[in-house]
Amino acid sequence: MTSPERTPDAKGAADLIITRCTALVHDDHEGIGFVEDATVVVRDGLVESVTAGPAGAGAAETIDAHGQVAMPGLVNCHTHTPMVALRGLAEDLPVEEWFNDVVWPVESNLTARDVELGARLACAEMIRGGVTCFADHYFAMDTVAAVVAESGLRANLGQAFFSSQGVEGRERSLDFALRHRGTAGGRVTTSLAPHAPYTVDDADLAATAALAREHGLPVHIHAAENRDQTASSLARRGRTPVEVLADTGLLGTDLLIAHGTGITERDLPVLARAAGRVAVACAPRGYLRFAWPTTTPVRALRELGIPVGLATDGAASNSSLDVWESMALLALTQKSAEGDPRWLTARQALHHATLQSARAVGLGGEIGSLAPGHRADIVLVDLSGPHTQPVHDLAAALVHSARSGDVRTTIVDGRVLMRDRELLTVDVPTVVREMGARMPALVDRSHGRRIQDYDT
Amino acid sequence: MTSPERTPDAKGAADLIITRCTALVHDDHEGIGFVEDATVVVRDGLVESVTAGPAGAGAAETIDAHGQVAMPGLVNCHTHTPMVALRGLAEDLPVEEWFNDVVWPVESNLTARDVELGARLACAEMIRGGVTCFADHYFAMDTVAAVVAESGLRANLGQAFFSSQGVEGRERSLDFALRHRGTAGGRVTTSLAPHAPYTVDDADLAATAALAREHGLPVHIHAAENRDQTASSLARRGRTPVEVLADTGLLGTDLLIAHGTGITERDLPVLARAAGRVAVACAPRGYLRFAWPTTTPVRALRELGIPVGLATDGAASNSSLDVWESMALLALTQKSAEGDPRWLTARQALHHATLQSARAVGLGGEIGSLAPGHRADIVLVDLSGPHTQPVHDLAAALVHSARSGDVRTTIVDGRVLMRDRELLTVDVPTVVREMGARMPALVDRSHGRRIQDYDT
Repeated sequence: MTSPERTPDAKGAADLIITRCTALVHDDHEGIGFVEDATVVVRDGLVESVTAGPAGAGAAETIDAHGQVAMPGLVNCHTHTPMVALRGLAEDLPVEEWFNDVVWPVESNLTARDVELGARLACAEMIRGGVTCFADHYFAMDTVAAVVAESGLRANLGQAFFSSQGVEGRERSLDFALRHRGTAGGRVTTSLAPHAPYTVDDADLAATAALAREHGLPVHIHAAENRDQTASSLARRGRTPVEVLADTGLLGTDLLIAHGTGITERDLPVLARAAGRVAVACAPRGYLRFAWPTTTPVRALRELGIPVGLATDGAASNSSLDVWESMALLALTQKSAEGDPRWLTARQALHHATLQSARAVGLGGEIGSLAPGHRADIVLVDLSGPHTQPVHDLAAALVHSARSGDVRTTIVDGRVLMRDRELLTVDVPTVVREMGARMPALVDRSHGRRIQDYDT
Repeated sequence: MTSPERTPDAKGAADLIITRCTALVHDDHEGIGFVEDATVVVRDGLVESVTAGPAGAGAAETIDAHGQVAMPGLVNCHTHTPMVALRGLAEDLPVEEWFNDVVWPVESNLTARDVELGARLACAEMIRGGVTCFADHYFAMDTVAAVVAESGLRANLGQAFFSSQGVEGRERSLDFALRHRGTAGGRVTTSLAPHAPYTVDDADLAATAALAREHGLPVHIHAAENRDQTASSLARRGRTPVEVLADTGLLGTDLLIAHGTGITERDLPVLARAAGRVAVACAPRGYLRFAWPTTTPVRALRELGIPVGLATDGAASNSSLDVWESMALLALTQKSAEGDPRWLTARQALHHATLQSARAVGLGGEIGSLAPGHRADIVLVDLSGPHTQPVHDLAAALVHSARSGDVRTTIVDGRVLMRDRELLTVDVPTVVREMGARMPALVDRSHGRRIQDYDT
């Protein structure tokens, strides 16, 4: 479907034109709409126009996307990319055993090379699944930043820290954030990344909030991940995790909270008073897997105007980095949790997948919409397969019938990273081969070490 | 990956040999195991052998399945194939409105040609998703039987009826079942198909049970679909739907119950006393979508020895016929419903997908396992993609990381129906084109008719 017709000398020619697609656009009230037989023009890494009808001029590259939907690339608002190396290693366990018996012992073996290979495999998986941007919260993030640069993806990166590392943990997180923000041609943004209120003490959280304000940095943290954490925080400190975020000043920063299934009624007025731009990342598959009794309270958060972005968490808990699946599961688990089949419609799911996810990673107004002037982060989704036909409702077809494997082409900043399912920036077999050879050393737990204890 | 090396004159040569695969097999206690670097030999439509190591002899066709898992084809234990035509038409609605305002009015327009096109598209979708057998419960089933014959799939088919059709409904269901059983080279089996205890009265159900016994036919019925139906049955008749099945003699037949999320504690001893081979089909996506408060009580049914097979229901509620997704959602929703992350492990999910699904459709001992003498219904699943690597646990990789789109090859009775993602028995574009042209007439609801009222 791709015909790269290079016309390098054509003055004023666009860099990329996508023709004959159905374009997913937002109206002035953020409603989801579709432009049939549309042309998308990309210039200098930006969307220049989305119009009905054929292209008016030539371009360096033209993609005929007949039968495909052009939509903003998905955003994975909370993940730990290198953990793809642990995919399937700790199945069918409660979260305590998952952390203490497998994940944290194995992570004590991690080397920068493991992180590099994991991040590279994760980028390949996400590009193939229509993800154009991700928020990563992990260790050895210099390495991840280098992989982001080579992969062509966009990312918000944070070097995770625990208070058990002393002040150095926080300082390394700050140092990383300052050195890397704006790198990879502006595709990398950075956050401070305290692990969680149960592993980072109040003084450390307050110091992090002060650094965020001083340096204009967002903060990305796990908080109120589940009801047990909230109950434990109340028992130990007399405050919920969200109240801890408020008391330490973090709700005054641009704060991305991972999970929040433990957010309770009493947290809602606290969140309503937040001075910063607070958002929550929801990774619904893991909440089912760990049999947590609640999911992210999306309806309550919506009433507060708090964006909820889509996420997968790491592949060690989610089994994949399939944000497309997160989109469908968000809709399904929200209907189930609210007992309301009318809630979280397919169009609402697409709003979470686009504008709300963009805001969650601090890139509202830059990504999440095919509006002119936004970054050209675009995916082309094939709806011609038997599992997506006929199409009575484009939103329903995208959210509930299409799969991540229906993404044919992935574009970031106007650059094609996957064309007709062919990855252009990552060599998967080479990564898989070396990763396989390193696995015995990585998964060895005979040493009895772990990087932390899970004890909320 | 396919090299058809035809050696037609080689006496004793097998029909098909699959080499270098990882084969999913069952041990004597039905545990799931994997044979690495295996060879699967197929002769006369049956699995002849599954052995470690290279092939010992030639065959008419050889498939090199290096990097792929050979496993029994999935079984869709409850669906309404022609309803793919309604995919996405009735979204985000409670089940009452879904039936009364959209599905049953539209179904009053159905023609045999609509059924034919829908069934053909559904077969294409299922072959691409690794489904080799399905249990279909719908109207105009002569047409569906013809499509099954041409598609190469295996199916158990039942002509649905309501008591509102008078005795003719039941008689047509019997006539269909007797005329079609054993057709398509034995690939078609049949069932009597009363719609549900709330649309078929007790006398009709009792007569159906008598016909089943007289003719040695199984019965396929919706029952206790949700808690509301059970409550309504108790209020109106003082008995649960399962007690109605018992009282009318249906629990003395080989009975496939669709859904059963309304099965209660008081039903369990009733089911335990069932003289027939009772099974339940679970289609978990729809229960989330309709925000039903419970799911199929798999743990309780297991204690009774009642098989629970995987299903999708029709695409009008499930959005797809993706049994692979049903397998993952069975595991996830069961963990969530039981509050137990250790319950319904990946291996248990594979047991439901294989042996239990085969038993649910009355084909235990014939399909559902790659054991010698079983029908050669085999799918080859590619685990080389970045989303399934690395593989620490083959069961977890299959259930939670792989997707239906990773099925590369689908084989029924030793015949290849899809090779390396190419469908060999269905022409999808032609079906989609004609279906699209017929859609305005099919979805017209201006007449105000409906085939039934949903009133449990």
